[in-house]
Amino acid sequence: MSESRRKPTLAVVGATGAVGTVMLDILSTREDVYGEIRLVASPRSAGKKLTVRGEQVEVQALAPEVFEGVDIAMFDTPDGISAQWAPIAARHGAVAVDNSGAFRMDPDVPLVVPEVNAEAARNRPKGIISNPNCTTLSMIVAMGALHRHYGLRELVVASYQAASGAGQAGIDTLYDQLEKVGGHRDIGERAGDVRRVVGDDLGPFPAPLAMNVVPWAGSLKEDGWTSEELKVRNESRKILGLPDLRVSATCVRVPVVTTHSLAVHAVFERPVDQREAQAVLAGSPGVVLVDDPENFEFPTPADVVGTDPTWVGRVRRSLDDPNALDLFLCGDNLRKGAALNTAQIAELVAAELTS
Amino acid sequence: MSESRRKPTLAVVGATGAVGTVMLDILSTREDVYGEIRLVASPRSAGKKLTVRGEQVEVQALAPEVFEGVDIAMFDTPDGISAQWAPIAARHGAVAVDNSGAFRMDPDVPLVVPEVNAEAARNRPKGIISNPNCTTLSMIVAMGALHRHYGLRELVVASYQAASGAGQAGIDTLYDQLEKVGGHRDIGERAGDVRRVVGDDLGPFPAPLAMNVVPWAGSLKEDGWTSEELKVRNESRKILGLPDLRVSATCVRVPVVTTHSLAVHAVFERPVDQREAQAVLAGSPGVVLVDDPENFEFPTPADVVGTDPTWVGRVRRSLDDPNALDLFLCGDNLRKGAALNTAQIAELVAAELTS
Repeated sequence: MSESRRKPTLAVVGATGAVGTVMLDILSTREDVYGEIRLVASPRSAGKKLTVRGEQVEVQALAPEVFEGVDIAMFDTPDGISAQWAPIAARHGAVAVDNSGAFRMDPDVPLVVPEVNAEAARNRPKGIISNPNCTTLSMIVAMGALHRHYGLRELVVASYQAASGAGQAGIDTLYDQLEKVGGHRDIGERAGDVRRVVGDDLGPFPAPLAMNVVPWAGSLKEDGWTSEELKVRNESRKILGLPDLRVSATCVRVPVVTTHSLAVHAVFERPVDQREAQAVLAGSPGVVLVDDPENFEFPTPADVVGTDPTWVGRVRRSLDDPNALDLFLCGDNLRKGAALNTAQIAELVAAELTS
Repeated sequence: MSESRRKPTLAVVGATGAVGTVMLDILSTREDVYGEIRLVASPRSAGKKLTVRGEQVEVQALAPEVFEGVDIAMFDTPDGISAQWAPIAARHGAVAVDNSGAFRMDPDVPLVVPEVNAEAARNRPKGIISNPNCTTLSMIVAMGALHRHYGLRELVVASYQAASGAGQAGIDTLYDQLEKVGGHRDIGERAGDVRRVVGDDLGPFPAPLAMNVVPWAGSLKEDGWTSEELKVRNESRKILGLPDLRVSATCVRVPVVTTHSLAVHAVFERPVDQREAQAVLAGSPGVVLVDDPENFEFPTPADVVGTDPTWVGRVRRSLDDPNALDLFLCGDNLRKGAALNTAQIAELVAAELTS
């Protein structure tokens, strides 16, 4: 920036979507580091007014001109939109912080979780920084803390992913289905009767989600793996700087509106200790330990949704491997899993630009 | 039996419970190998009439006399009732087939899954045979088939367990909660609002189950493990005859009425092949392979509930371990997970007694 004391101008692209909506809330409640904030969305949302920092701001249609004078441009947009427009924002001199999958595995684009690898954000040859996938983000702050202490070797992950991971359509579909099944006290004991009550409109999911779990998220990739499962593997490796980390993930959608949960089996280089691991997690920024099973205290999505941290509980040393931990964790997939981490990256950049 | 051609007399103890109800259905639809069938329950259910094999049968109160002349006595009762009464049935000359946890780890009581270790049922020094826990049963037929082919070394399991695993109270609680949340389109985005709508009566669960997942099943055991998680480990070892099998399980309740699902990471002695493993599963009695991700075909609890087999899909070779498979499977926890396996064990005994 020409004048180092000017507060940076921010553009929020995709301001009207599920993540964008949470982003405006986050921008209104965190320390205000920005000058102008421009809201950008598809042409059909242009002219709509949204509230950010207590003020009404008119949404502008996505076009090259909206990036003029912008220092940081957040993209909460589908892969194709990001792939096309993040480079345009960068050419206009903005640092693009992209929440899509378009650039995450690009070796010239850092993939950043501020609690884990903040320093990576400074090296951005394309002027683009990527925000990880929400499922990876649900666990990576906790895993990063344990990795620094014990040296991570392998992750086996099973996910319990919320409907909002599939966007507003996912949320709407789950509410629709819950409304239809609510009050039926005779379904769920015979194959197909939930499907009959829910009807044919399954929204973005390949099977009914209410009263069900669906072992599918993302699209089909090689050898039966889903894009979501490969993201957990590839993004964990990149963020932690462990290109040979062994990762197996099975991603499953559950009838929860927002907040992803994961059951994690983590194998380390060194022997682990239950109490010590709990202390490491409790002392890590961005992590809250809720682990008192005697009093039935452990995180559940309904109890932690809408909050910032990664919530960890059920921490146990594996009975048959002194180097392994089993645990259960929850993270709001729209906040830390998307908008919050994007905001944190943008704040890193803002601090760098004004320092 | 004095006369080898007489059909054995069966007693069903706990005939009025969630599993007992499914048992009467199973006894009415499978090949009829029994002479008299006596229905037994607690004194408060005595006199009630239930239908089995198309006939009304009066429920008798549990007392030593009900076992007179009984050849096989099934117990679908809590641990304490089984612990007290299965030996009484055995003293009256019956073979007790017990679905509780009372005897499963007793070295003098075989733990039997007919597709895996039918021969173990013949060696029953106490006259008692145990039926495994429903979560173990949801996966063990499939795992037994893969073990015979590749030699099982380690299991990492995350469960998606149905409400009916906590009995009729679990089913009722989930229906109550689904009725309360159905139609609310503004909950699930802020911590605690599902809890507020659901109210204080959580039934047998330590947190709301509707619109949530709860990382808890069973009771607290040493070092933070639950009884359910230890059962998966200890029972898998005993059934498969692998006392050193490495097992880590995290058991999680999901808002599904009936049918447990599991994400399984299985490590073998020998390298695995995806197509071969699929063929092994497809060719195993008691297992159905539904694994065509290109057409979004995989098992979900809502699609398979009320059926007998273990349904397996999402079979993948681990990307970082040629000896490991990742898969997702579903099994009806009231049928194969409880009543059906008990019925199959009883049929083994009936065949032995009449041979």
